[in-house]
Amino acid sequence: MVGSDVTLDALPLRDDLRGKSPYGAPQLDVAVRLNTNENPYPPPPELVADVTAAAAAAAADLHRYPDRDAVALRADLAAYLTADTGVPLTTANLWAANGSNEILQQVMQAFGGPGRLAVGFEPSYSMHPIIAAGTRTEWLPAPRRADFAIDVDAAAALLAERAPDLTFLTSPNNPTGQSLEPDELARLIDAAPGMVVVDEAYAEFSDRPSAVTLLGTHGHKLIVSRTMSKAFAFAGGRLGYLAAAPAVVDALQLVRLPYHLSALTQAAARASLRHAAATLGSVALLRAERDRVVSELAAAGYDVVPSDANFVLFGRFADAPRAWRAFLDRGVLIRDVGIPERLRVTIGTPEENDAFLQVALEINAETNADVAAEEIVK
Amino acid sequence: MVGSDVTLDALPLRDDLRGKSPYGAPQLDVAVRLNTNENPYPPPPELVADVTAAAAAAAADLHRYPDRDAVALRADLAAYLTADTGVPLTTANLWAANGSNEILQQVMQAFGGPGRLAVGFEPSYSMHPIIAAGTRTEWLPAPRRADFAIDVDAAAALLAERAPDLTFLTSPNNPTGQSLEPDELARLIDAAPGMVVVDEAYAEFSDRPSAVTLLGTHGHKLIVSRTMSKAFAFAGGRLGYLAAAPAVVDALQLVRLPYHLSALTQAAARASLRHAAATLGSVALLRAERDRVVSELAAAGYDVVPSDANFVLFGRFADAPRAWRAFLDRGVLIRDVGIPERLRVTIGTPEENDAFLQVALEINAETNADVAAEEIVK
Repeated sequence: MVGSDVTLDALPLRDDLRGKSPYGAPQLDVAVRLNTNENPYPPPPELVADVTAAAAAAAADLHRYPDRDAVALRADLAAYLTADTGVPLTTANLWAANGSNEILQQVMQAFGGPGRLAVGFEPSYSMHPIIAAGTRTEWLPAPRRADFAIDVDAAAALLAERAPDLTFLTSPNNPTGQSLEPDELARLIDAAPGMVVVDEAYAEFSDRPSAVTLLGTHGHKLIVSRTMSKAFAFAGGRLGYLAAAPAVVDALQLVRLPYHLSALTQAAARASLRHAAATLGSVALLRAERDRVVSELAAAGYDVVPSDANFVLFGRFADAPRAWRAFLDRGVLIRDVGIPERLRVTIGTPEENDAFLQVALEINAETNADVAAEEIVK
Repeated sequence: MVGSDVTLDALPLRDDLRGKSPYGAPQLDVAVRLNTNENPYPPPPELVADVTAAAAAAAADLHRYPDRDAVALRADLAAYLTADTGVPLTTANLWAANGSNEILQQVMQAFGGPGRLAVGFEPSYSMHPIIAAGTRTEWLPAPRRADFAIDVDAAAALLAERAPDLTFLTSPNNPTGQSLEPDELARLIDAAPGMVVVDEAYAEFSDRPSAVTLLGTHGHKLIVSRTMSKAFAFAGGRLGYLAAAPAVVDALQLVRLPYHLSALTQAAARASLRHAAATLGSVALLRAERDRVVSELAAAGYDVVPSDANFVLFGRFADAPRAWRAFLDRGVLIRDVGIPERLRVTIGTPEENDAFLQVALEINAETNADVAAEEIVK
């Protein structure tokens, strides 16, 4: 192997990257994987067949660049989101990229960057500050209440005072699970002088109306980001998208890398969207399972944060990293999201949830996990 | 459509993006498309079948995130590049992304950015300064000689004097076609204090040894970027990659978006690599056709820049945009790359090249294209 004598420290890396570690949950081969908020249900056979046929058609033309503007895919996404939200959207309102991470990176490249400020209410999706750093956008973490909900009055005051160029509102919030109501979103958008991104990666699991319903009144400021990774069970396909005013989409085309979306991605995502009704059928099941996991955890004495998504934040553990390891040692991979005393579990199939709950009961009995009261054993 | 009342001017766009247009050649439905340096030969049926089978396997697991580190694909790329260059490379030397544009963006995020300087010798690949702008890296365009070759003495002096953090050397150079010899590359890398990216998007069309052969001696500074878009006929699949010291790959993992490469991309690229021998068989044919196009254009009185790639820069035209339109009006789409008096044509199939040459002869007769001598009609 050439170059093995070169060390990372010796390279002229950007100073702010020195000592950092790559983002990412451990990818471990464990029987029950409930750590990355994936949909546990594999694509149905007819979806697999349709994606395969779409890939076959695209493969015959792979020597040609894909449609740079992904027009057909964006039209399909507009049709889906119009049906989902009742808001009339067209191709010009939609933009797509390789996962919502790339969507958010493009947004920060267009509206953030050096000398500009972004605010997010933490704990929230941990990629937001990482993408801010990657685009050299200053990141201001703003607090949530002790119950992890946003204090809307305090948040509106902070946005008015700090006047960020970009505000990130995650609804439902990952990793805590709460959603914002449309009137709360509207108040916060009104208070924020810059662009506001509502990250709706988990929207399909929520009871609340989408922020897309605010585009008619707040389209000069509002960007709603979505993903096919979760409800659509398309994490492997990497397709994030957004809905916004057409001028916002025009702005993103100034920073997108040309041909960023492969012909296979476009074809596979379109095929997957044709099966939306079937795929989203699993969402109702997952919501019911989520409510069951919440109540069984609570019955077992755990402190559980109410969730509007496909995951649940629970605790409290005297030593969350040690508890995470205890779950793993029993064959259940969940997520330590760095919140003291808490862990996050993704809702899986009923069998996976049973396995998780069984382990949760064992661990609770062994380690006296419930330290919600006075006594926190460190 | 919601948000149609919002204008781009009214959005808080970054100042340096105002007034800009999105990058990209026109995507027109024309009989003979010789404008984006694609390989004109469609994937052979056995490759299409293999890509389809790979997509089918990947589709069954699309609800799961892909391998974040794309280890199997990187191992296959290492094997290919080892065979191609004779340099022993392993997975740790390789990195892959959605096209070489994303590779270059990650390189600039890790080693460039605000307060850092990148140099390229222009005219060259026009995305280099665009990606520099997107990452807020200062871009210094350095000159080439009148014949579009790099003056190595002058370039080495400039690199020593300006001390860029990043230097871009494109070999073969797009859109002019010349390659740098390994000893020239070594001199320039020695002169440059920062990281040096040798962009080898067209390497398979060249007679010269790859810069990969310098990794053993220059691995502390050298990054060699490649793509499957051109020789591999995989433009629609979007797969760029690089070879470098393992520490460089470690550095890029600090800025890459997690799960940036979809499961379909990884599977399809691996399938395509299994057919490398067949796909690359077209390269010899394209090189022979390139040499034929060069000599026929020259025989017709055109001024032709010698090419080591799958395209040819030719002229001279009193009005290159008008000449570009004249080709298009006759059903041949070539590229106006913004170099005065010149146009670039991609080498196509023999039939496409015949069609192009026929039009070139007609236009030459009509517009007296050869203005290489004293008299340039403006």
